[in-house]
Amino acid sequence: MPQSFPQDSVGIVTPQIIRFEQPLPLACGRQLDSYELIVETYGTLNADASNAVLVCHALSGNHHLAGFHSEQESKPGWWDSAIGPGKPIDTNTFFVIGLNNLGGCHGSTGPQSINPETGKPFGPDFPIMTVPDWVESQARLADHFGIQQWAAVVGGSLGGMQALQWAIDYPQRLRHCLIIAAAPRLSAQNIAFNEVARQAITRDPDFNNGHFYENGNVPKTGLMLARMLGHITYLSDDGMREKFGRELREGKISYDFNPQFEVESYLRYQGERFSTAFDANTYLLMTKALDYFDPAADYGHNLAEAVRNALCKFMVISFTSDWRFSPERSREIVDALVAAEKKVSYAEVDSDHGHDAFLIPNPRYMDIYSAYMKQVASDIPPTGKENN
Amino acid sequence: MPQSFPQDSVGIVTPQIIRFEQPLPLACGRQLDSYELIVETYGTLNADASNAVLVCHALSGNHHLAGFHSEQESKPGWWDSAIGPGKPIDTNTFFVIGLNNLGGCHGSTGPQSINPETGKPFGPDFPIMTVPDWVESQARLADHFGIQQWAAVVGGSLGGMQALQWAIDYPQRLRHCLIIAAAPRLSAQNIAFNEVARQAITRDPDFNNGHFYENGNVPKTGLMLARMLGHITYLSDDGMREKFGRELREGKISYDFNPQFEVESYLRYQGERFSTAFDANTYLLMTKALDYFDPAADYGHNLAEAVRNALCKFMVISFTSDWRFSPERSREIVDALVAAEKKVSYAEVDSDHGHDAFLIPNPRYMDIYSAYMKQVASDIPPTGKENN
Repeated sequence: MPQSFPQDSVGIVTPQIIRFEQPLPLACGRQLDSYELIVETYGTLNADASNAVLVCHALSGNHHLAGFHSEQESKPGWWDSAIGPGKPIDTNTFFVIGLNNLGGCHGSTGPQSINPETGKPFGPDFPIMTVPDWVESQARLADHFGIQQWAAVVGGSLGGMQALQWAIDYPQRLRHCLIIAAAPRLSAQNIAFNEVARQAITRDPDFNNGHFYENGNVPKTGLMLARMLGHITYLSDDGMREKFGRELREGKISYDFNPQFEVESYLRYQGERFSTAFDANTYLLMTKALDYFDPAADYGHNLAEAVRNALCKFMVISFTSDWRFSPERSREIVDALVAAEKKVSYAEVDSDHGHDAFLIPNPRYMDIYSAYMKQVASDIPPTGKENN
Repeated sequence: MPQSFPQDSVGIVTPQIIRFEQPLPLACGRQLDSYELIVETYGTLNADASNAVLVCHALSGNHHLAGFHSEQESKPGWWDSAIGPGKPIDTNTFFVIGLNNLGGCHGSTGPQSINPETGKPFGPDFPIMTVPDWVESQARLADHFGIQQWAAVVGGSLGGMQALQWAIDYPQRLRHCLIIAAAPRLSAQNIAFNEVARQAITRDPDFNNGHFYENGNVPKTGLMLARMLGHITYLSDDGMREKFGRELREGKISYDFNPQFEVESYLRYQGERFSTAFDANTYLLMTKALDYFDPAADYGHNLAEAVRNALCKFMVISFTSDWRFSPERSREIVDALVAAEKKVSYAEVDSDHGHDAFLIPNPRYMDIYSAYMKQVASDIPPTGKENN
């Protein structure tokens, strides 16, 4: 590891692309004949492949969880605070896999990929993906690495929903499930915010019904608006007050339509940066996957029934100021797990950082996370441990 | 009153336009040389003009508070639930004035009006209005009607901010001030939502830097997005759950990008309706007036100092599920009034209707409102009462 990286960093990491030739049937009724997943791994898989942790990403996340792609990269992967030597997901103990989900825009097969039937990018013709579809693709990824059973499947937000779905769909294939800042399904308000974002994107004249790759434009305004709006829902009212208050950019109000307040220019900056870095079709697809996630729906809308066959232990974590997926929503998951007589721990962490708190190394959060992952480590079967 | 209107309706009402020739200096440093206000009145002004109630409107409101413009009109004015014979603002007792604020798009001078200097609509060149500017224009409206002192100034949301500003700017000219579902100033989160709405409007290609009247287009998409977003902030999470839940439009998910959930089509409908009915420049102006409202700013950011000279009695009402201007924000107003030793009543009303609750005739709210307005009536000086 270069001197310039912190001691607890995984250092320089290199993604790899794995190709799958077995067709993947999807919830929407279509299938992907073949597909690629881009992944990163950290740590070393032990001999019986019993120390593997799968980390699932949220709406705009990807496979780059931790470390740096080069010495020039200024920011590490998105969950670097939680993954590395001595960190909660300790890479001295665990073999960690991050992937970009199908439908993503960071290297896995998605709307930007070439549709073999047409020779052009899929664009809007890429099939809608669901959380169960992703879990199925991740199960095949586990097979590829020879991992019969994950030590843990971990995720925050939409990533936590994937972790929960794993416990339902493949009860034999994980020992622990960590569901952080998630919800058992979206509320009407959550869906409403997603719909505003989708309308912003699809009504952008540069969206061109999703076929914008051909003409070289991207629906920047739509993506910018979607991200600005998303950003508001990731922060808390208190957190924004603390971060921005009503601070004026120029010290005093100038009574015009230019941005006056720090929060305005911050959001514009975030929105504009995102608008050239993310794919609009992927954004639409990810929000739909969120809207459609509802594992209880197939069990008479009874979440306890949905998790009845789960075999793993659960850790659920929520954050007090998260109003996107509030602690109340996490408690719905906990209550269902308790009703189904599962082993579940629950922590509600004090934080002003809203939904974003799951990405921020709040000491109490990191302590809880580390303590639980030590339990996950202690559940690695002895043969695996010796080999580690 | 036609048979078809309810007994407690003010019935058919006709707006009037009042022209003011005295220039109005504005906070932004510019002035309006002359201007018009469109108003509606209900009830009868008594001989000493002591029974007048001014009702100030919120972001998208107007002068049409109550009753119907014709027998064909299916919906009454926006606060018909609170204004009429026997209703909280009882038109058997009070003379009620509603106006469209300057900068509005319902008949008062605003961005759609002809700029006398150019012979074209003002458009984006219409000056930015502030809450104190509106209060000044409303004081001249009081003069026009010979009203020296309002029995009460009443408003919800941005309207409540105007009521508060009245108590500060014209302490002699009102006996009662009713501040409903308001806040002493916007939070960073409030400003952030406004900024997303403004970006949606101003980046709409049909906005044409605000000069869209000339080419006959309107920035429909931008206004639609602004309204959809606004609508989410007017409703509560619980209220949306109750109203829409996760009800599917077609009974089952169809895995495409069409609206699947009732809440999506509801928001689209609301947004599209608004996009052809409201003026984009007015929307921008109203959101800026909200952002800039901060009466404490001139008093060392001490709201108690700002209200120190107020002479009226105050009624502050908030609603439990209002997260746009939460009860906490109303309590900031109450605390400042208490600190300044003002006479203040406060009610926090249980409601699932979020910010919109101030428009909805919840029985407990109406009871509190009526009881307070009876006190306002009892404070009408005896001569005025005899004349009524």
